[in-house]
Amino acid sequence: MRLFDEFINANIEYAKTHPTEELAGPPVKKVAVLTCMDARLDPAKILGLRAGDAHVIRNAGGRASEDAVRSLVISQVMLGTQAIVVIHHTDCGMVRFSNDELWDRVEHHYGVDASDMDFLPFDEVGPSVVEDVRILRDHPLIPDTIPIRGYVWNVRTGFLEEVPDAHVN
Amino acid sequence: MRLFDEFINANIEYAKTHPTEELAGPPVKKVAVLTCMDARLDPAKILGLRAGDAHVIRNAGGRASEDAVRSLVISQVMLGTQAIVVIHHTDCGMVRFSNDELWDRVEHHYGVDASDMDFLPFDEVGPSVVEDVRILRDHPLIPDTIPIRGYVWNVRTGFLEEVPDAHVN
Repeated sequence: MRLFDEFINANIEYAKTHPTEELAGPPVKKVAVLTCMDARLDPAKILGLRAGDAHVIRNAGGRASEDAVRSLVISQVMLGTQAIVVIHHTDCGMVRFSNDELWDRVEHHYGVDASDMDFLPFDEVGPSVVEDVRILRDHPLIPDTIPIRGYVWNVRTGFLEEVPDAHVN
Repeated sequence: MRLFDEFINANIEYAKTHPTEELAGPPVKKVAVLTCMDARLDPAKILGLRAGDAHVIRNAGGRASEDAVRSLVISQVMLGTQAIVVIHHTDCGMVRFSNDELWDRVEHHYGVDASDMDFLPFDEVGPSVVEDVRILRDHPLIPDTIPIRGYVWNVRTGFLEEVPDAHVN
């Protein structure tokens, strides 16, 4: 498939510029970023991250799922991060469907019942960030001493917008 | 906290260069990349991705967790991706601990019993990719028609290395 060949060719070009200095695993800035898988959102670019700076956890919506918590615990306990940034964004696909609609589509296209999976859609970006910051803050595996900040990234302007009530500790 | 101010300042600089053309949500290359949260691994750079090209899902290890599947289903059913790339990497933190060790550390540091969480560590990178490609291939919510390729990214050289038996359909 041509797509995979393109990636291999792009990677060969990348490797020519790969830094020769060896970086350590634990993130230099001691922070983990939780954000959406959206193709337009490049966490390294929008936050000015350099190689080695930060863990980046991404899923559909940038949600505080149990798997995101799994990653955050490893990030903190094994690799020393001490802060969390949660970033959702405008024009997110997650506001355009309900669980019912997605279950119906999966049933229609794949003939499979997916109704035991919560796809974690949300109604409005902003409140979604407040909800996920709250889930992390209240989670027994995320210590209260870890500061958490929530933002909405504006896909049109490129700016991060602070979210009131998504700023804890 | 100075870290968050640094991000906001870096983002103000970024926004000056943010493209004025508006990109659509569905990824141009119709692909989703599943990889590790590692701070040294920048998926956009190592694959030559441009803004809008691909969904990027990241967690500790780049594992095929149920939350990764949630994201992949949304990626495919709602946003039209038709291929998956799985990338693990050398020098991954996930080979340096067992569930037992992490449960002990969490108990020791936080006083919390985390033994109901599988942190998904692995013994060896490469076989880990084969395992995750197999989990995705066998998952009822990922159609057999979706090609999946697995690679190991070499942190030292910057090269993607193909993994035998992690190349399905």
